[in-house]
Amino acid sequence: MAEHDMVDVIRAKRDGGRLSDSQIDWVIDAYTREQVAEEQMSALLMAIFIRGMADDEIARWTDAMIRSGERMRLEFDRPTTDKHSTGGVGDKVTLPLAPLVAACGAIVPQLSGRGLGHTGGTLDKLESIPGWKASLTAAEYRQQLEDVGAVVCAAGDTLAPADKKLYALRDVTGTVDCIPLIASSIMSKKIAEGADALTLDVKFGSGAFMREYADAEQLARTMVALGTAHGVRTASVLTSMENPLGRSAGNALEVAESVEVLAGGGPADVVELTLVLAREMLASVGISRDPAEVLASGKAMDKWSEMIAAQGGDPSAALPVARERHDVLAERDGVLAGLDALSVGVAAWRLGAGRARKEDPVSAVAGVTWHAGVGDAVRRGQPLLTLHTDDPARFERALEALDGAVRLADPGTDVTQQPLVRDIIRP
Amino acid sequence: MAEHDMVDVIRAKRDGGRLSDSQIDWVIDAYTREQVAEEQMSALLMAIFIRGMADDEIARWTDAMIRSGERMRLEFDRPTTDKHSTGGVGDKVTLPLAPLVAACGAIVPQLSGRGLGHTGGTLDKLESIPGWKASLTAAEYRQQLEDVGAVVCAAGDTLAPADKKLYALRDVTGTVDCIPLIASSIMSKKIAEGADALTLDVKFGSGAFMREYADAEQLARTMVALGTAHGVRTASVLTSMENPLGRSAGNALEVAESVEVLAGGGPADVVELTLVLAREMLASVGISRDPAEVLASGKAMDKWSEMIAAQGGDPSAALPVARERHDVLAERDGVLAGLDALSVGVAAWRLGAGRARKEDPVSAVAGVTWHAGVGDAVRRGQPLLTLHTDDPARFERALEALDGAVRLADPGTDVTQQPLVRDIIRP
Repeated sequence: MAEHDMVDVIRAKRDGGRLSDSQIDWVIDAYTREQVAEEQMSALLMAIFIRGMADDEIARWTDAMIRSGERMRLEFDRPTTDKHSTGGVGDKVTLPLAPLVAACGAIVPQLSGRGLGHTGGTLDKLESIPGWKASLTAAEYRQQLEDVGAVVCAAGDTLAPADKKLYALRDVTGTVDCIPLIASSIMSKKIAEGADALTLDVKFGSGAFMREYADAEQLARTMVALGTAHGVRTASVLTSMENPLGRSAGNALEVAESVEVLAGGGPADVVELTLVLAREMLASVGISRDPAEVLASGKAMDKWSEMIAAQGGDPSAALPVARERHDVLAERDGVLAGLDALSVGVAAWRLGAGRARKEDPVSAVAGVTWHAGVGDAVRRGQPLLTLHTDDPARFERALEALDGAVRLADPGTDVTQQPLVRDIIRP
Repeated sequence: MAEHDMVDVIRAKRDGGRLSDSQIDWVIDAYTREQVAEEQMSALLMAIFIRGMADDEIARWTDAMIRSGERMRLEFDRPTTDKHSTGGVGDKVTLPLAPLVAACGAIVPQLSGRGLGHTGGTLDKLESIPGWKASLTAAEYRQQLEDVGAVVCAAGDTLAPADKKLYALRDVTGTVDCIPLIASSIMSKKIAEGADALTLDVKFGSGAFMREYADAEQLARTMVALGTAHGVRTASVLTSMENPLGRSAGNALEVAESVEVLAGGGPADVVELTLVLAREMLASVGISRDPAEVLASGKAMDKWSEMIAAQGGDPSAALPVARERHDVLAERDGVLAGLDALSVGVAAWRLGAGRARKEDPVSAVAGVTWHAGVGDAVRRGQPLLTLHTDDPARFERALEALDGAVRLADPGTDVTQQPLVRDIIRP
């Protein structure tokens, strides 16, 4: 590999130029081997943030990140299809989705992460199930994929290790919310994971990374192009995150809601998104079964039980609940016109459901539930939201986060809800 | 002092905003106390590089850097006046200038640095004099200012310590050549030094930090405003660095040329610049003596001898000379139309006169001399340049740097030389 001078690489991007393939390959490799200092990489990341990257530059950067580790090979008699969400408040869809798609005949190999900030992590949610463990050996992982057809577990260190270092650095240097860096981070891990197909759920709105639809669409198009270029059949659903998804945000609370969905009930928006994503994941690998039928049949619930049990969890055990609760009541009669997703996410986080730093523990029981959806009529004095935590000292700051989060319209107002799914981008 | 979140500070500048006074005060103080990580500061520096800073932001940033250490108080019966150059190839003017201005009745307190890159450092040059030492205690410094009237010595750690850390960081992160950061770096140290007045020599052209005159002028205006705002009478001379200054670049070589100037000879451009700067330094503290007369009288040479002897040097000792030399001959008859300053600087640096990293040693004897000035007629086969080094393995790469550096016009061509001093900016 050609050697480069890091200061020359930084200057090239600083001045708005394109990094050469050779520069990109060198910088990712040298940084992974700790031959480039953190303070040099952060200067380059800030230059990338401000100056941007051309499409072919992002593609090479992603490719170099994949090559910083190993790209797994998954060889089974059934096709493999995975899903990734950019993260939303109350988004527990992976939990019913993975067993549902497996019950339809595909293999779902989901290597997942932990939550940072106001959107929860799938592993944190599953860890609220007594006995369930996130870490599997490579052999256990393959065996479970073969036997059960679905795994949600922690990604090992061999998958795009450059991304692990870069992600931690971006977090402390104000370089997180940048399309080239987000797209290459997500896609390097997902491509390295080795699935045949990938369905992305890119969120936009108050509770999402991308506030603006146009940014979310650009991110989605960038990622679909990256996956396609690497031979992974990739599609992206663009979904609204103005209001939080379902009726709960928090770890055990979201598991409980997911089980409701698998039992044939649950909030309509969670069911809708689960089915939209399942259809996309199945279509991408040529499976024509209707996931709504499979969900109604109870086979997805059976698969969930298998999946949880395979990782040491007890699917029939009671989930932990919070020692303390606090209700927020409706101040007047009206119609729920909006519930701000970011506010709910921050409140759940402050109650203990999320972490500020990656070494922080999370509470299984903390979170927020809400008792009306957008468009529902509410009566004065009715509980609108319930806050859950083991630590009542946390209520005050959580309530501050919720100040102004609920928008009530006059009784009888016809509140038109935004469609949840705005567009689907395919190659 | 108000606490801030470093990521918020970085984001504010990243998005093109102005840093508040409180943010600036906090970030410089916290960084000096190692409470802000290097990788966070480098992200902020890159954001400043690309987004710029408003004039009042630069002023506050500079002020915070001064307050990171102590601002010295110099109280003498004569006025104090200092000079700073942004660095040029062959620029040895401080050496004759400091004793000349002291001989005219002012006090010259010059706390200086070492060279990095292709422009030499004043301390490196003086250290080629047998016995001379760059480090003085605070008491020795004041005593020498009182007794001799001139000191050139190493700056201590108490002067703008934030700048020392920032300078090292900028050097490895591609954030050096940025007007707000250059101006605040120079002026924080010079204001903290405590002189009544300051004359700046801001260079432009091939061998200077600032290639373009417009950038040099903006830097000069920024620094004059910063000095004036802090009660230091500041003026800036704008001088051309297309061609190197004098006839030599290298440590002992430049001392020898400086002594020639003090003896009443030396290259015309070095004499001219020395006198222009001396007049400015003297005028800024209300001294009306003519430095040309004082130079001709031999009193500046006497002062030089005192100044060198006071720091342990032997002003009458022979200077070291290189063991190996290599001449570059004129390929044809002609008129010297140009000698590229950057090329000469890089050649001298590669011969050993400068350092790539601040811990590298420098050679006292290495460097380049040239035997014609711009406009001089040269004959085929005549030595144009001589390369000096103790290590003949260095000739090859030095010669590469000089490839194309000499421009010869046809014999008899009237080559008009650019004026050395283009403008003087006063408050």
